[in-house]
Amino acid sequence: MVQNLAVTNCKISTREIQKTTITGARDVAIQMLWVHFSCLWFISFYGLYLLHEEYNEILLKRIQQLQRLRHRPDQFTILVREIPFCTEHKAHGCCVDHFFSKHHPYTYHSYQIVYDGRDVEVLLGLAESIARKIENLRERPTAMKTKREYLLLGAFGEDAVKISLEEDRLEVFCEKIRQLQHEIELPVAFVIFKTRRGAALAAQSQQHSHPLLWITEMAPEPKDVSWRNLTIPYKILPLYEIGVVLAASLLTIFFAIPVTAVQGIAKFEKLKKWFPPAVAIQLIPGLSSILTGYLPSVILKGFIYIVPCAMFGMGKLAGCVSKSKEEIKACNMVFYFLVGNVFFLSVLSGSLLDEIGESFTHPKDFPSHLASAVSAQADFFMTYILTDGLSGFSLEILQPGLLFWDVIKSRTIGRGGEKNPYLYSLPYFRIIPTVWLSVLIGTVYAVVAPLLLPLLIGYFCLGYIVFVNQIQDVYETVYETCGQYWPYVHFYILIAIALMQISLIGIFGLKSKPAASISTVPLLLFTLMFNEYCKKRFLPTFQRYSIQNAVENDELDEKSGQIEDNYENAVNAYRSPCLQPANFLESESSTTHPLVS
Amino acid sequence: MVQNLAVTNCKISTREIQKTTITGARDVAIQMLWVHFSCLWFISFYGLYLLHEEYNEILLKRIQQLQRLRHRPDQFTILVREIPFCTEHKAHGCCVDHFFSKHHPYTYHSYQIVYDGRDVEVLLGLAESIARKIENLRERPTAMKTKREYLLLGAFGEDAVKISLEEDRLEVFCEKIRQLQHEIELPVAFVIFKTRRGAALAAQSQQHSHPLLWITEMAPEPKDVSWRNLTIPYKILPLYEIGVVLAASLLTIFFAIPVTAVQGIAKFEKLKKWFPPAVAIQLIPGLSSILTGYLPSVILKGFIYIVPCAMFGMGKLAGCVSKSKEEIKACNMVFYFLVGNVFFLSVLSGSLLDEIGESFTHPKDFPSHLASAVSAQADFFMTYILTDGLSGFSLEILQPGLLFWDVIKSRTIGRGGEKNPYLYSLPYFRIIPTVWLSVLIGTVYAVVAPLLLPLLIGYFCLGYIVFVNQIQDVYETVYETCGQYWPYVHFYILIAIALMQISLIGIFGLKSKPAASISTVPLLLFTLMFNEYCKKRFLPTFQRYSIQNAVENDELDEKSGQIEDNYENAVNAYRSPCLQPANFLESESSTTHPLVS
Repeated sequence: MVQNLAVTNCKISTREIQKTTITGARDVAIQMLWVHFSCLWFISFYGLYLLHEEYNEILLKRIQQLQRLRHRPDQFTILVREIPFCTEHKAHGCCVDHFFSKHHPYTYHSYQIVYDGRDVEVLLGLAESIARKIENLRERPTAMKTKREYLLLGAFGEDAVKISLEEDRLEVFCEKIRQLQHEIELPVAFVIFKTRRGAALAAQSQQHSHPLLWITEMAPEPKDVSWRNLTIPYKILPLYEIGVVLAASLLTIFFAIPVTAVQGIAKFEKLKKWFPPAVAIQLIPGLSSILTGYLPSVILKGFIYIVPCAMFGMGKLAGCVSKSKEEIKACNMVFYFLVGNVFFLSVLSGSLLDEIGESFTHPKDFPSHLASAVSAQADFFMTYILTDGLSGFSLEILQPGLLFWDVIKSRTIGRGGEKNPYLYSLPYFRIIPTVWLSVLIGTVYAVVAPLLLPLLIGYFCLGYIVFVNQIQDVYETVYETCGQYWPYVHFYILIAIALMQISLIGIFGLKSKPAASISTVPLLLFTLMFNEYCKKRFLPTFQRYSIQNAVENDELDEKSGQIEDNYENAVNAYRSPCLQPANFLESESSTTHPLVS
Repeated sequence: MVQNLAVTNCKISTREIQKTTITGARDVAIQMLWVHFSCLWFISFYGLYLLHEEYNEILLKRIQQLQRLRHRPDQFTILVREIPFCTEHKAHGCCVDHFFSKHHPYTYHSYQIVYDGRDVEVLLGLAESIARKIENLRERPTAMKTKREYLLLGAFGEDAVKISLEEDRLEVFCEKIRQLQHEIELPVAFVIFKTRRGAALAAQSQQHSHPLLWITEMAPEPKDVSWRNLTIPYKILPLYEIGVVLAASLLTIFFAIPVTAVQGIAKFEKLKKWFPPAVAIQLIPGLSSILTGYLPSVILKGFIYIVPCAMFGMGKLAGCVSKSKEEIKACNMVFYFLVGNVFFLSVLSGSLLDEIGESFTHPKDFPSHLASAVSAQADFFMTYILTDGLSGFSLEILQPGLLFWDVIKSRTIGRGGEKNPYLYSLPYFRIIPTVWLSVLIGTVYAVVAPLLLPLLIGYFCLGYIVFVNQIQDVYETVYETCGQYWPYVHFYILIAIALMQISLIGIFGLKSKPAASISTVPLLLFTLMFNEYCKKRFLPTFQRYSIQNAVENDELDEKSGQIEDNYENAVNAYRSPCLQPANFLESESSTTHPLVS
């Protein structure tokens, strides 16, 4: 059973109705299929059982983590969007105060309006560069002191004039910034409550009879807020979302076209034509064959390496209110891309568009089509896991991308400037989809070609070691979602199990075992129903803050008498970053005239 | 343009690539198609505009109605399901009290546990019949007083013994009822709040970190509660729902089979064979031809008449918490049935199952298939509206079904008993789907065969007159949903508009005008996006009670000082019907020992 039956099975299937004269061998094959069948049921049910246990455990961990992080300001805060404009006071703020003190009288505390900081940020950048210039000018005399020249050359006088000129300019800028900071109010506010219970209730209820006004949701962590996206009006947000989904789908479907085009150009024969010095490569023996063999693959890898960045960029444009949601979105898009362009494109040779069209017009043929293709490609994926998977982890430790980028930066822009100790966050959008893809490959091949599994176990073990190291020592934590990634992991493992079942329905069909094929259909239905059950049983607690947990945490705080500190903290945590006073010159503008009064 | 182009168009389409020698006629046809094209756009946009305005108006009316009915107890009450069992007190009640007074301390008032009343109801029925017997025995002597015989015959003494015996039996029954009434507690309760705001907040939030415990929703009106469905455990509710959906789909898809079978048996030739006296019909001239012509149609009508009742029965089994939701469910199922078996089956001749299979395997061909079929069937639907539609309203006034039922009942079961003044509720599940179907037919044919429209206007005017009369004078109001039916009406009109667009995409395709066909696709997409917009803009307020409205109504009550009366009313309004004390004998059991203490 452990033998890789898939390849031999496939050979039989390609010859199709070829009559085998040795009936004994056929009986063995049929018995083998029943072994496959029982393996499928066992793996499916055990997989679902493990998924259920894991979801449950992660749910408990999430609740514990929320309790541990109960001093975080986001537990007291909700994000309110589409606040109507008060024509009387020409502001949104008074509306917020009036609305929440009327409708949530016992728990409402205060609010923080969000300001449009895009112009201010530009000005702050300019002001900062002027401040740096002034500092440079000030430092120059002290640097030249030992040379005793500055008095003789009158450089000090010249510098003093320059400094006072620049200081005047800086003053003008600061004045402008101060004016602008409170000018463009957005119809968005963070509303702070006195209890977690009040915040949770307000976040989950419909405030206004016009459901597109006063839209409330739990606020993200202050560090996690995507301020730029809060400037997008809520009404046109769906357009952004549709645009991003469209762009990501187009990239996924038509990705193969530019890659093949570039691969076509990069062939050695064409290279010689376009770039004559390349003929020199032929002089070194062996190099030309390496080039011909590896160049297309390198180009493909290069393109695939860029895709996560592109998807991350698109995720940022989708208008999510928090960075974590942007990254989750990017993860999903990259995963669909990988499934489309690595899994399906390798399995079903032919363009992705044709395949999608085919499976829409003849959905019935999909399982058998998938089955014959899956069983033929087991070797390919074994190599894929061995090379790509393992090389991926070693690259993760070496961090070649960051190294390269840092070298370039230090040689060009950053030359002379202070060295930034580069602290990056874990690039979830690059790592997680690859792991998901490996799980998908492993699950789909678990029955058909179990030889893949030991390789995968090695892969995951290595991955575990690498990432425990990276998370502890290399990367910085930017946000903490308390397990928000898990529902996606769960869903994609379920998709993998369903794909395994579909491909086996196809294989049983190809092997003309309709009984096995039909009796797998209830298993597929059960898997889909299990998904629906999990959505109802676990997902809501990942999306909302239950009243019971909120009250529990409130009571813990009350016992320790900390509740007031906590919500007072929240007030300051959600200031728009453009409102933070910029310390250009300690002695000058910032301390005497604080930018925010 | 007003001419019925469809039939001529279709004739052209069936001949397909037949070359017309007269190019002038062709030019006219092409120009006509552009007229159709602009009509389609005009009707679509005007339709969507009207739908938007109407939804808005009905939303406002709903809010006003909720304000007018603000004394109703359901505004203060939520329905809580899946209450955990308190092992300490061996009850659910203490859990409810503890949970809500802890988590909603300012607004929680009290609760009413729901009891399983199925056994009690049986016993109450038996007790009632005994009470009636006793009453009959007591009345006998007074009736015989004038005859002065009762003393002579000793009948009084005999009756007295009988009465005391029956009274003992009644006492035993009442004792048993009293025991049972509080025995089987369900994990369901109505929780009453002191303010509408509190109830709305609790209904819309997730109470427990286990989202399948403490499930809350706004309570239905007391009259509207479906007590029997509250006994169904929440966990197996999805099975009920799936079962009902499956049964309704099977009935819709395979409805044609039994009908054709019965029609086959009921043919006059076969009738003669099975039931020889039927030959006598031939003796009356003309009767046999009437029979042969009308019998199949009568059988079809009979079956279609029974379907709404069947669907209503299924709706009751689906486990909805209120009668209004049951009826809405039945309406939807009947509508899908009518669309499948009247609209599609008449349009696309052939079995419904084949058609569904066809459109799943070749979804691309659906528009052209629909188009050629739709344009061929305009005459049929004109007749349909004229006969079925108009006859439906006259039957509604005559109420033949109820008349017939009443006659049967008065002759069999109810003979001698007191006459029940029969007051029925408006059978929404029978009327609304028919009206929806007429709207669907009218919209689909609005561009292709506008001659249908005047007939439809006549139909709707007659319907308006009939139903204004029936609602005012004939039917009794059982529940008031404040416009809950409208979202469905809206959705089905949108489906009709989308179907019109799809059929016109097909027609333009058949007429080899790909430009017109392709430029209709954005219109279809726009319609679907409009649907999504309406779902976000209007639907939430139909499903939830917004905090703003709740607070407004609370304030109105506070001004008039009525708020306490209102929530005190709610406490008594949600008693399980099995707890109501049954007044069997005013002087006996019920007054001296009240059934509920």
